[in-house]
Amino acid sequence: MNEIAKPSIEDVGPAGETSLLETLPRLKEAWTPSSKVVRFDNEPLKLDSGQQLPSFQVAYETWGTLNEDKSNAILVCHALTGDQYVVGKNPVTGKPGWWETLIGPGKAIDTDKFFIICANILGGCMGTTGPASLNPKTGRPYGLAFPVITISDMVNAQVRLIDHLGIGQLFAVIGGSMGGMQVLDWAVRHKDRVFAAMPIATAARHSSQNIAFHEVGRQAVMADPDWCRGDYFEHGRVPEKGLGVARMAAHITYLSEEALHHKFGRNLQNRDERTFSFDADFQVESYLRHQGSTFVDRFDANAYLYITRAMDYFDIAAEHGNFLANAFRGTRTRFLVVSFTSDWLYPTRESRHIVRALNAVAANVSFVEIESNKGHDAFLLDEPEFFASVAGFINAAAQHRGLQT
Amino acid sequence: MNEIAKPSIEDVGPAGETSLLETLPRLKEAWTPSSKVVRFDNEPLKLDSGQQLPSFQVAYETWGTLNEDKSNAILVCHALTGDQYVVGKNPVTGKPGWWETLIGPGKAIDTDKFFIICANILGGCMGTTGPASLNPKTGRPYGLAFPVITISDMVNAQVRLIDHLGIGQLFAVIGGSMGGMQVLDWAVRHKDRVFAAMPIATAARHSSQNIAFHEVGRQAVMADPDWCRGDYFEHGRVPEKGLGVARMAAHITYLSEEALHHKFGRNLQNRDERTFSFDADFQVESYLRHQGSTFVDRFDANAYLYITRAMDYFDIAAEHGNFLANAFRGTRTRFLVVSFTSDWLYPTRESRHIVRALNAVAANVSFVEIESNKGHDAFLLDEPEFFASVAGFINAAAQHRGLQT
Repeated sequence: MNEIAKPSIEDVGPAGETSLLETLPRLKEAWTPSSKVVRFDNEPLKLDSGQQLPSFQVAYETWGTLNEDKSNAILVCHALTGDQYVVGKNPVTGKPGWWETLIGPGKAIDTDKFFIICANILGGCMGTTGPASLNPKTGRPYGLAFPVITISDMVNAQVRLIDHLGIGQLFAVIGGSMGGMQVLDWAVRHKDRVFAAMPIATAARHSSQNIAFHEVGRQAVMADPDWCRGDYFEHGRVPEKGLGVARMAAHITYLSEEALHHKFGRNLQNRDERTFSFDADFQVESYLRHQGSTFVDRFDANAYLYITRAMDYFDIAAEHGNFLANAFRGTRTRFLVVSFTSDWLYPTRESRHIVRALNAVAANVSFVEIESNKGHDAFLLDEPEFFASVAGFINAAAQHRGLQT
Repeated sequence: MNEIAKPSIEDVGPAGETSLLETLPRLKEAWTPSSKVVRFDNEPLKLDSGQQLPSFQVAYETWGTLNEDKSNAILVCHALTGDQYVVGKNPVTGKPGWWETLIGPGKAIDTDKFFIICANILGGCMGTTGPASLNPKTGRPYGLAFPVITISDMVNAQVRLIDHLGIGQLFAVIGGSMGGMQVLDWAVRHKDRVFAAMPIATAARHSSQNIAFHEVGRQAVMADPDWCRGDYFEHGRVPEKGLGVARMAAHITYLSEEALHHKFGRNLQNRDERTFSFDADFQVESYLRHQGSTFVDRFDANAYLYITRAMDYFDIAAEHGNFLANAFRGTRTRFLVVSFTSDWLYPTRESRHIVRALNAVAANVSFVEIESNKGHDAFLLDEPEFFASVAGFINAAAQHRGLQT
């Protein structure tokens, strides 16, 4: 049974949970998101691990209007710490949507022309089922009882949403970083449902170094005694320090050395002299501490563990005889692959690897490496050349699709 | 008063401390190192912070024979987590010395020809005074009462040792990473006491990104409740988890993506399939966890805080009108500057910055960038081109110095 309705607190948890919810307002968005939500009760989601979720929900937002033949839908896939609030004021943080640079009325992806969909990922904490959701077996938050998931599992949950919306073929799927992994998974496993695909600042498999950084983050969370082996909600605690450290380490990898140098250099923070202490003397320290402390207000620690794990497991070629081109064989999707020169988390060579595989099967692929000193985060920032590339690709694809643009 | 003698446990602490020592054997090396040690009692060490250490000790080792006119001495400066055990079996860890690749009988730096000295740095935990040492004011370990120190403070402690050994001019000072910072400080502030200097895989100031990584490590340590605001010894605890996470994050920066890829790739650890869990499925995870857990056995958490802070504060140009060349004006030291192509912690541009400054004052400088895929750690590993460069430089310098080689 599909329904678009926000379950009330009483619906999703036994009566006894109300106090848990009251003491931990951060569960509110995980259980009863501010966005649209669709529940799939008694329609299990089979997972790559062999386990299944007996029921689940997908929280999502849409912008623009779906045309009559449902041919103008663009699915946006968000990154590790992203959410479904792509455009407009984020109702949870009060900040602008995370991809307003690229998407909106008159933007490269024009919400006046296209119907934009973005869903919180499976394993997330903004309304789609994840480790903070209630485990129907126990009536308590899943915690570590939540099954380990994969990028394909995330995509399979999105497929349910797209089915629910009655959309056969998506005009386009677009995403950066982990969002780009989802784009690739869509393009590989649902070839006929993706007219155009834009994997941005991403890779077809997670590198050894990136697994290493993720492992540091997970160990930081798990080292925090407030993590309570994943059952922190039950104990009325939150592993804020561990998650903060994880975020700080990760945040460095999202920038470039040059960006840090230009932004902060060795500038001192609100002082003229070194304090000869462990205070945040340098602006970069103050900035990182702020990144860590604000992150824990909006993100669930267990979700961080599960999502990073899904990224680590991502390796398309491994499932296709260790030959990436095999994964794309027979594709009729049009691809735009984008990388940024100073991105050292998903460097250009990872994008070239994807492009070579697509070329090997004579796919329709454009590739652009954008000159930028902003590091991995460039895909979220003001990069006019990037916007122009996306606009050009989208408009050409729309013509081929026979869309009025 | 100078004396070369190992103080006994009874000498360094009041009787009451014996139990502290017994419960925490890791204080043994900090108080009564296995190496030689010289104490400077009632000969205060003035620090850059304006504070001073009323007395201190320097733990050190030597190899080879000092010649009659004391002109063949080479001071080796160790890096963040290094120690004085450069050559031969490390009496603490049982492992080979950390620079046996470069130094030893018949090696690039030949212990049959030169007299090699290496001292544990000020702020360290292997016998030179640091935060684990006894605070004479309280008779308890310093903890955070230890003053924040600088690279110059470390060098000033080494100067006392060199004075104590009766050596006027060092034939050479050599070090990699933070060791290289000490080399530069020697060459800048003690120009006449350094005939030849080899700053390797280092920088004249710590970059914003490197400060950021250090701050992550410090926050990981401080987030550990077992840190006890630095007084963990008093509580019979050790912040092992926090220090382990700090080491894991740092260790990634010592390697290169290529080295991680070649060493581990996405290989699974002793298993054929992903476990769909948070176990160390991947070899790189297992490796990092091992790096973290073995590090905490040999290193003091507070020392890690103090030493990283000293590195962050390092900025030679800042003390010379923001013009690095000013620092080297009038130098007669011969320099060999070395970088490694895949070192992203101290990339080649940092070395070029040093070389340009030396050129600007017409200093005698050789520069070599070694082709290597091993990242920052390359300076400790088997790099024949590096060894050849050092040997060539050392032997030419020895000829100029009039040494028999």
